[in-house]
Amino acid sequence: MIGVYDSGYGGLTVLAALRAALPEHSFVFLGDNGRAPYGDRDSGTILDFSEQCIERLFDEGCRLVVVACHTVSCIALRHLQSRYGGSERRILGVTIPAAEMAVAQLAASGGEAVGWLGTTRTVLSRTPQIEIAKLQPRLKVHLLAAPLLVPIVEEGLEDSSLAELAVDHYLRQLPTVDTLVLGCTHYPLLLPIFRRLAPPGVTVLDPARFVAERLIDWLRRHPGFSTPREGGGGLRLLGSGDPRLVGPRAARLYGAPLPPVEHVAETGGRLAHRLLPEQPLGQVLR
Amino acid sequence: MIGVYDSGYGGLTVLAALRAALPEHSFVFLGDNGRAPYGDRDSGTILDFSEQCIERLFDEGCRLVVVACHTVSCIALRHLQSRYGGSERRILGVTIPAAEMAVAQLAASGGEAVGWLGTTRTVLSRTPQIEIAKLQPRLKVHLLAAPLLVPIVEEGLEDSSLAELAVDHYLRQLPTVDTLVLGCTHYPLLLPIFRRLAPPGVTVLDPARFVAERLIDWLRRHPGFSTPREGGGGLRLLGSGDPRLVGPRAARLYGAPLPPVEHVAETGGRLAHRLLPEQPLGQVLR
Repeated sequence: MIGVYDSGYGGLTVLAALRAALPEHSFVFLGDNGRAPYGDRDSGTILDFSEQCIERLFDEGCRLVVVACHTVSCIALRHLQSRYGGSERRILGVTIPAAEMAVAQLAASGGEAVGWLGTTRTVLSRTPQIEIAKLQPRLKVHLLAAPLLVPIVEEGLEDSSLAELAVDHYLRQLPTVDTLVLGCTHYPLLLPIFRRLAPPGVTVLDPARFVAERLIDWLRRHPGFSTPREGGGGLRLLGSGDPRLVGPRAARLYGAPLPPVEHVAETGGRLAHRLLPEQPLGQVLR
Repeated sequence: MIGVYDSGYGGLTVLAALRAALPEHSFVFLGDNGRAPYGDRDSGTILDFSEQCIERLFDEGCRLVVVACHTVSCIALRHLQSRYGGSERRILGVTIPAAEMAVAQLAASGGEAVGWLGTTRTVLSRTPQIEIAKLQPRLKVHLLAAPLLVPIVEEGLEDSSLAELAVDHYLRQLPTVDTLVLGCTHYPLLLPIFRRLAPPGVTVLDPARFVAERLIDWLRRHPGFSTPREGGGGLRLLGSGDPRLVGPRAARLYGAPLPPVEHVAETGGRLAHRLLPEQPLGQVLR
């Protein structure tokens, strides 16, 4: 089984690409939506939360976990890899594949400036800039935090004129770029608007499909991780938030109906399976 | 000293009204913005976080704390009052004053339907409906979650056409009402747009000033809490998030310049004063 982890449900856009590319594999998706958004949190909290989520997925039987969240990939990936990785277990992220995709696109088109939209924490980390500089130091990278885009997608307004105004608001803040990376896994739902409103000549990149291609390539190079079990193709969803609040949103991000969400919640520093929490009316006493 | 507590910085709109009404008192404001928004969190987490914040404010020397957050007032107020309240310490909320204001407004105008905009958790609790029914059972109360409005204010877009579209989006979802309560302490910055776009005859209420009036009345009835110390009129700000991220937003919510934010963070179940956290670039290792 392959684990896919996101701070919320945005990573379902990556899951959809991975399942389409690897239909014989079974997947477990964990959305830590009860503690999302991670984008404004401090680094230590992101390390704590991501450790709990990775441990939950390993406990579910995954040997390979894809961190389908740029905030976690930018802040915590190396820590998670050094703490949990090895010959038996691996953790892969989405930011380096996205950086590779941007560099390849610019090499093909001859451009030299990349725009990268992401969460506040992604932008503060400057990790996309650091990773692109390792690949091609002469490129200019312009990072921009776009905190309105996630709630607009969460509200189901990705096709609205409100979404157009928000995308336009961020595009106007960017200097001239040749390539624009949608560096948060919620943003692909806004791809049609980005492509319509971006200035002529700007290539807008959704890294999800490239992440899937890189994973297929990685599995080919690591055959011990690539043997699908009997009865593959399955999917389970774990979520730390109230499952009743995410059904339609999650299916929209994924692009198809989904199985019911199994609830997990923190108990003593670990994410454990729990019954659906009660939804009391009025004041809560304890 | 009077403590004012919000899950984020929205409560600064209430703080501004309280300081204008009680200029001789000193205030300590605690914004738990490092763990905001509370609006999508489960009830148990909101109880945990609000206990830590109330304890921090009592430890600062406050005897009276105003919970300037409707989500916490709707979920946790009675628990906090029964756990910490007494003859020496008191905790007051904002939702009951807002309900009283709506009922008084409808009694004066002869209307019978209230609209109430708030966070997802406020709406799920139905506490505004429960509190209004205690005061005037025949009124109809329509609750509506408006999750886009907080991030729009946080982005400083309260005067934009994007904000107009979002307000219009929520107004269209409400049935006909006579009075509309802005039931989240971020929303008052959108009051001019609400007043412009609301259908004719709808009264839009910002509860902040009424909360201040009720507090003055409460202090008159509880003289032990109302003696300002020598050198009153002071203000301190505590925040659990990165202080560098909130400066201009916080001043905009408050409507005036503010003192520097003192950083507090959770350590072993308590909110303690801490040095500014480092903002590492790239990956974080530990």
